[in-house]
Amino acid sequence: MTDMITSSNNQVIKKVASLKQKKYRDEYNLFVVEGIRLVEEAAGSTWRPAMCFYTEKAAAAPRVQATLEILAAKGCRIFPVADNVYAKITDTEQPQGILCVMEKKRYTFDDLQSSDRELIVVLDNVQDPGNVGTVVRTADAAGCCGVILTKGCADLFSGKTVRATMGSLFHLPVITGVAEQEVAAFLERQGIRLLATALDSSSLYHDVDLRSPVAIVFGNEGAGVSKVILEKADERLYIPLYGRAESLNVAVAAAVILYEARRQRRVAYL
Amino acid sequence: MTDMITSSNNQVIKKVASLKQKKYRDEYNLFVVEGIRLVEEAAGSTWRPAMCFYTEKAAAAPRVQATLEILAAKGCRIFPVADNVYAKITDTEQPQGILCVMEKKRYTFDDLQSSDRELIVVLDNVQDPGNVGTVVRTADAAGCCGVILTKGCADLFSGKTVRATMGSLFHLPVITGVAEQEVAAFLERQGIRLLATALDSSSLYHDVDLRSPVAIVFGNEGAGVSKVILEKADERLYIPLYGRAESLNVAVAAAVILYEARRQRRVAYL
Repeated sequence: MTDMITSSNNQVIKKVASLKQKKYRDEYNLFVVEGIRLVEEAAGSTWRPAMCFYTEKAAAAPRVQATLEILAAKGCRIFPVADNVYAKITDTEQPQGILCVMEKKRYTFDDLQSSDRELIVVLDNVQDPGNVGTVVRTADAAGCCGVILTKGCADLFSGKTVRATMGSLFHLPVITGVAEQEVAAFLERQGIRLLATALDSSSLYHDVDLRSPVAIVFGNEGAGVSKVILEKADERLYIPLYGRAESLNVAVAAAVILYEARRQRRVAYL
Repeated sequence: MTDMITSSNNQVIKKVASLKQKKYRDEYNLFVVEGIRLVEEAAGSTWRPAMCFYTEKAAAAPRVQATLEILAAKGCRIFPVADNVYAKITDTEQPQGILCVMEKKRYTFDDLQSSDRELIVVLDNVQDPGNVGTVVRTADAAGCCGVILTKGCADLFSGKTVRATMGSLFHLPVITGVAEQEVAAFLERQGIRLLATALDSSSLYHDVDLRSPVAIVFGNEGAGVSKVILEKADERLYIPLYGRAESLNVAVAAAVILYEARRQRRVAYL
């Protein structure tokens, strides 16, 4: 263990603080997970931890101590830091005093576990980091084999997105930066049906057979699914709006359809 | 129309800025809706608009002009303000230059539309304003007759909550500040079944008959539904977790169960 870092002008600290910006996350191929629960998830995952920073106060908790030991055993560099230094690198309003810098892991289509009952989520230009993160969490909960994010989506590795995944980022492959044409071509090659959510000329979601391998596309918060994908879709689904709301939140819509797929699959295989 | 307000020390401006705090929203019985879409919803609703503020730039849009006219016709005071003044009262990062101060409307149990197929959402100590707002939006979409918030929930009238409702706040009754005992007693009097979500000793949500009048309770993000309500519940439901996620976001969980209730009701009445 090194000496406590007390200056926020320290070069390492400056680098970590820069990871709040996508530009530097991309340049260094690193991102930050923060808070004991997420750091525990990261430490227990197959992802590589690079550097961990903690405050003296946080280290008093046995849970933090145990996690630091796991991280150190994995070759992660461990840095105790002064409170003012932690304040410079934290991205949360109520910091817990522990954060870990992780190496990004890049998944490809090959990482999507092949089965005869695939369930894949595609997010197409979803802008809000909280929505992207919540969909990853929900896809994990619903037992999806992976999530595909098109190029225009919010960065998976921003603080907000990572927090919203609640650790599910480390549980299933999330393939990022994919061109819309590539998504359609991959699914066609694999014989996975492409279902796009759309409000017009589409089928009521629970009337569609969701038991065979499917990828379900959810679109941008304002504009919906892009034309490229809509044109390639095998079928279009919609969720009915019974009240006066004009739309559903995208993470909410994903949950409704993914759990309907699960319900159909369970009932069918009883 | 009054002269443009150019000083952020103006007494009215100070009062509006204070509404970012719950204390003053409660004291004045006022809250703020911001952005043209939400202000349009507010203007078209039965709620009373008190004061509207806009920047010269925003007023260039015909949509804003039309809304200002509707508001003025309703007796709302209209104030053009300088950009620096708007900056003081806005609660958003990318302000659209129009916001409206509204009088709060208090709903009671009497406002819950009585029917033979009631569907009510109860949020019990849900802390996150975004979650509360998204549930209100989802309850509207799913055609619920109302939402009940227990005392410990995030304030319905905070900027974040109002934004997350996407206008649904004005579409259905949301009863706030209710004691847990009162919720159970009211439902019992009305013969509405009380269903609580819980991970232990409970039924798989889609195996439960959700066609008769029901109120479904979703609990605090960490602690779940309170003991008081759990003990009064007619049945406990859970949503299965197929992957490695430890839980679902509360707004996501509400969507899954509300839309399952809708699916069952539609199928049953075909």
